[in-house]
Amino acid sequence: MSHDLLLRNVRPLGGAATDLLVRRGRIVALEGSEPAPELAVEDGAGALVIPGLVEAHTHLDKSLWGMGWRRHQAGPRLIDKIETERRLKKEWDIDPARQSARQAVQSLRMGTTHIRSHVDVDDAVGLAGMEGVLATREAYAEVMDIETVAFPQSGVMVRPGVAALMEQAMRMGADVVGGLDPCAIDRDPKGHLDLVFGLAERFGKPVDIHLHEPGQLGCFSLELIIERTRALGMKGQVTVSHAFCLGDPDAGLVNPLLEQIAALDIAIATTAPASRPVPAAATLRRMGIRLCAGSDGIRDTWGPYGNADMLERAMLLGLRNNFRRDEEVELALDICTTGGAAVMGLRDYGLAPGCQADFVLVEAESLAEAVAARPPRKLVVKRGRVVARDGVALVEAP
Amino acid sequence: MSHDLLLRNVRPLGGAATDLLVRRGRIVALEGSEPAPELAVEDGAGALVIPGLVEAHTHLDKSLWGMGWRRHQAGPRLIDKIETERRLKKEWDIDPARQSARQAVQSLRMGTTHIRSHVDVDDAVGLAGMEGVLATREAYAEVMDIETVAFPQSGVMVRPGVAALMEQAMRMGADVVGGLDPCAIDRDPKGHLDLVFGLAERFGKPVDIHLHEPGQLGCFSLELIIERTRALGMKGQVTVSHAFCLGDPDAGLVNPLLEQIAALDIAIATTAPASRPVPAAATLRRMGIRLCAGSDGIRDTWGPYGNADMLERAMLLGLRNNFRRDEEVELALDICTTGGAAVMGLRDYGLAPGCQADFVLVEAESLAEAVAARPPRKLVVKRGRVVARDGVALVEAP
Repeated sequence: MSHDLLLRNVRPLGGAATDLLVRRGRIVALEGSEPAPELAVEDGAGALVIPGLVEAHTHLDKSLWGMGWRRHQAGPRLIDKIETERRLKKEWDIDPARQSARQAVQSLRMGTTHIRSHVDVDDAVGLAGMEGVLATREAYAEVMDIETVAFPQSGVMVRPGVAALMEQAMRMGADVVGGLDPCAIDRDPKGHLDLVFGLAERFGKPVDIHLHEPGQLGCFSLELIIERTRALGMKGQVTVSHAFCLGDPDAGLVNPLLEQIAALDIAIATTAPASRPVPAAATLRRMGIRLCAGSDGIRDTWGPYGNADMLERAMLLGLRNNFRRDEEVELALDICTTGGAAVMGLRDYGLAPGCQADFVLVEAESLAEAVAARPPRKLVVKRGRVVARDGVALVEAP
Repeated sequence: MSHDLLLRNVRPLGGAATDLLVRRGRIVALEGSEPAPELAVEDGAGALVIPGLVEAHTHLDKSLWGMGWRRHQAGPRLIDKIETERRLKKEWDIDPARQSARQAVQSLRMGTTHIRSHVDVDDAVGLAGMEGVLATREAYAEVMDIETVAFPQSGVMVRPGVAALMEQAMRMGADVVGGLDPCAIDRDPKGHLDLVFGLAERFGKPVDIHLHEPGQLGCFSLELIIERTRALGMKGQVTVSHAFCLGDPDAGLVNPLLEQIAALDIAIATTAPASRPVPAAATLRRMGIRLCAGSDGIRDTWGPYGNADMLERAMLLGLRNNFRRDEEVELALDICTTGGAAVMGLRDYGLAPGCQADFVLVEAESLAEAVAARPPRKLVVKRGRVVARDGVALVEAP
């Protein structure tokens, strides 16, 4: 379905007030004439309009959103969280279809119009996560674009049967091949990365690899990713999520890697955690490296935080990178909009004529204020259709 | 003024539902009988009740709250921020009385009942900051407790005349003697600290020193603070704010200092910044070191962030310290309540019979959910009087 809409008196990216005309779900240049009588009209009342927020790294299949409060019980190590989650998914009946729909609707009411979701593929849940998220993608296709990453959360070399499940996930329609800590979790970096890149080659799909490994270890894994990206001619087709190792203070370790990442157009996804080293956002941007952001898990068995608000994520990005000047805060927001679009390869994204009419209205004087204040979303529009108003989604969650 | 109130059906700290009775501004044990007919009654509807949030480190005198959006223009160094602020205070007419009142009312609607505010004392504004904040303290005395720290933001040894102004500030009624980076800003650690501690001794007041200096430099300044605390018998009378140096990864540097800090009952105030090393909250708590938290500057010339929400500060503390389990998140909240009360030396703080009836109601299943979700404050009560309801303050800001 495509929609028509005339949006009166809005300020694109905080600029001068104007009207925005949408025809058949796309922004069109303003015509001189009055709108046709059948056209839906909304009064923006001077609100700021931002392109739809892009949630470029999350886990739709395992949020606890709407399931009541559950005490968080995972131990401190990554492997504790993985093991605890495997157990609780069954004990608590964390249904991927229901939970992904709930989180998607929460995202929508916060002004997100595009989501890249990693989806667990493992020997505990099999392909139930993929089935659930794909069902949500179909059910909400009119109001949210969802991309899926087949994600071997528990490892693939250390878990017999997961390699075959990964292949099945790709056949089911996963958009991206996922991977995870080739050394620390999968204990076989060559085996892991050959498998991940092998699937990417076979299915003609891009790659997005979780890399939590810190310091020298993470940089070693990153070298292996870079080697394969180069050897397979996958320039522009690889994302590394987290990449904490790029936050290492040793410039002699990090800078040569950043140069290769830039040359091979490898993208970086960050959640800007406050407690870990992170890639320096301004440096990456200066080097032309695509950088996107995401909420990571939202209120799941890994941790209690998160509300799917990508304006809040921009604030956390700003705080983590010590961004204070308006142009720096605007960069944080840009990472959560056009940065995500660049990583997801979205075409026709933005507020220019011809772009898909996906945007969000907030009452703020400037982009930086929108990030600092995170006001309720006045209007969220997807392909020209109003999908949320005054912070309330106009579609139902299960 | 003291007030009576019967609060029905609330869950103190997330525990079992009960009623809370307030007589003459204090919580009293529940009587068996029905309330007297003149008693105000509120229905808590099962909401969680938390002791009033404590904003233990902020700068009321220089917030831009309510002044419209101003582009942030300060350079990257601490001294850039100090210089920019000195200039903009005049150019933008940042009136300390008006601005402190605005921030205090914002704090109040977020559930804060006590504030420790550093107040600039320097050769640019003189004592105008003190005058303004003291005026706000008096005007809002019924609804907010405000403590003032005479704070030489621009340095005292490097600024002729500021030492005399600091003395005047203490005579005007400042509750605490402030200080700032004895090496990095004031260029004379012995001179600075002798002056600060000298004022404290003379006026019989405690000390709260901003210490941004990192690593070895900060630890040197901290040693000098510890020496003076010991020599002057000021155990329990000294707070160090920020203390980034205690976040240094060198345990050999930090641990001996932590032991002396614990022995001398020196308190630490943190804002849990994501971009700086910070003292490890769990370690400090385990060592019995008093730890409080604050928003620092709220939307001022130093940076655009902040909303005076101490539940959000607890979340940021949790994120910074990688707190995920419920008991860890509860610790983050405790730092923003009883931690602040311990540092400010509040008597009769809490929810026990006999305590001053300062508390806040939020709709949440648990304390951890209150931190993760930060819902609007259903009710804020100060000395038994309802001062905010459903996120709206019942007192006016200028």
